[in-house]
Amino acid sequence: MAEAFKKRMADAISAKGPLCAGVDPSPKLLSLWGLADDAKGLAAFSSRCVEAFADVAAALKANVAFFERFGSAGITALEYFLGEARDAGVLVIADAKRGDISSTNAAYADAWLRDGPLASDALTVVPYLGIGGLAPFVDAAAESGRGVFVVIRSSNPEGRTVQSAIASSGDTLEAELLRELEDPRYRGCLGAVIGVTKDAEPIELPSSGFFLAPGLGAQGASTEDLTALFSNVPATSVLVNLSRSLLESGPDPSSLREAARHAASDLSGAFCPPS
Amino acid sequence: MAEAFKKRMADAISAKGPLCAGVDPSPKLLSLWGLADDAKGLAAFSSRCVEAFADVAAALKANVAFFERFGSAGITALEYFLGEARDAGVLVIADAKRGDISSTNAAYADAWLRDGPLASDALTVVPYLGIGGLAPFVDAAAESGRGVFVVIRSSNPEGRTVQSAIASSGDTLEAELLRELEDPRYRGCLGAVIGVTKDAEPIELPSSGFFLAPGLGAQGASTEDLTALFSNVPATSVLVNLSRSLLESGPDPSSLREAARHAASDLSGAFCPPS
Repeated sequence: MAEAFKKRMADAISAKGPLCAGVDPSPKLLSLWGLADDAKGLAAFSSRCVEAFADVAAALKANVAFFERFGSAGITALEYFLGEARDAGVLVIADAKRGDISSTNAAYADAWLRDGPLASDALTVVPYLGIGGLAPFVDAAAESGRGVFVVIRSSNPEGRTVQSAIASSGDTLEAELLRELEDPRYRGCLGAVIGVTKDAEPIELPSSGFFLAPGLGAQGASTEDLTALFSNVPATSVLVNLSRSLLESGPDPSSLREAARHAASDLSGAFCPPS
Repeated sequence: MAEAFKKRMADAISAKGPLCAGVDPSPKLLSLWGLADDAKGLAAFSSRCVEAFADVAAALKANVAFFERFGSAGITALEYFLGEARDAGVLVIADAKRGDISSTNAAYADAWLRDGPLASDALTVVPYLGIGGLAPFVDAAAESGRGVFVVIRSSNPEGRTVQSAIASSGDTLEAELLRELEDPRYRGCLGAVIGVTKDAEPIELPSSGFFLAPGLGAQGASTEDLTALFSNVPATSVLVNLSRSLLESGPDPSSLREAARHAASDLSGAFCPPS
């Protein structure tokens, strides 16, 4: 059995701090970087992200939608990026928000969490069709030391209708799903996406879990919001994503790296306040 | 403005009945059909589906996960299939279950609902991050007469924890989300996936909506379950999906076509009982 993803993630955070650098080649950012809005532009963009962020960030997170825009040519660019990230020795998360019934999830797990052109260290998934149906992702992840981040609380306000609904246990849906994630079968390979928002409702996070936290920077939450939300879990169990606020300092690689270094240092301070 | 997807779907159902034929090139079915479990196998499989089903089914539904298994090569096979289906004049649904925050949904909408290599007549999406964030899908769909099916009730039992949770309105989440879909801005382009299951809880469906119904055949629900669930909506507003139960009659094209013709006739009978 491979080392569990949770441990691999904690090692990366111990070495480089909690920053997860987003790779979001949106039309707007491609233009800002002077790149064409096509598959070649994607490849150049994501290659520069590896160069700038691999040494400074614990993980890179590719927003798959921006690659999918160009169909198979875009997916080829994504495959190229995944290879470069692997070679650079940085963890890479495919932010694809997949999720379907169990038999279909087995195919998505083959795609993203087993050896192949899209193999990633971790994948984001959504639980609208239930946690039980995610078993094929868990099986694939556990075998290879890969991880799965289940979106429990998203960073956008529109998500509250669903995520704060009341489950049959009497708890909110997000609390209920978090509890389901604590099943020992999932330990070390099934983590949670917990979005950070301004003045968010508190949420009780399992201390044995691991987390991906979007919402800072361009999305409006602050490091104080972050610290409040994750005050009860170990610092090495939280990856903090920044995308636009880093990427807008491009295209110059040294400016990108400087922005990432600065962010990583701020975030490390947020989790480990000076004594 | 293009003709709304709901109207295009109703026309197809009037002409050919309510059958939506699934294109699910799973490892098991590829093997049953004597095809290799690779991108070439996918292309041969899906090409045969177009040949067998285009004249008999109102729509074809490609399960994107099975194409994604092979990365860019699989997506190339999917593009090829989409082109063949377009040429054959049959509606095609990309069953991809996409869904993220609004800015990312704009990229998925570009990929699947605007002209490009993956352009499809309709796309399935999941609402875990809220209905409001789906606006970019609606914009793209409305412009081009394409459609979006939001998964409201899935056909798997594991989905109940989420889908039957209680929203702040006091209704179940699925009832609340269905109500949100009735917004006039969404009319004609935003429909719902309503899975059919044995002994399902009743659900009040908006008579102005349009629906995709999985769950029959291999998944265990009967035509009686289907008829009971959709008794209050027009017959031309429901596409009924069958995947495995059709595809297991392959690989012979005439057997596949015969199975589809038989199913289409049964389903037409279910919605329009003889007087």
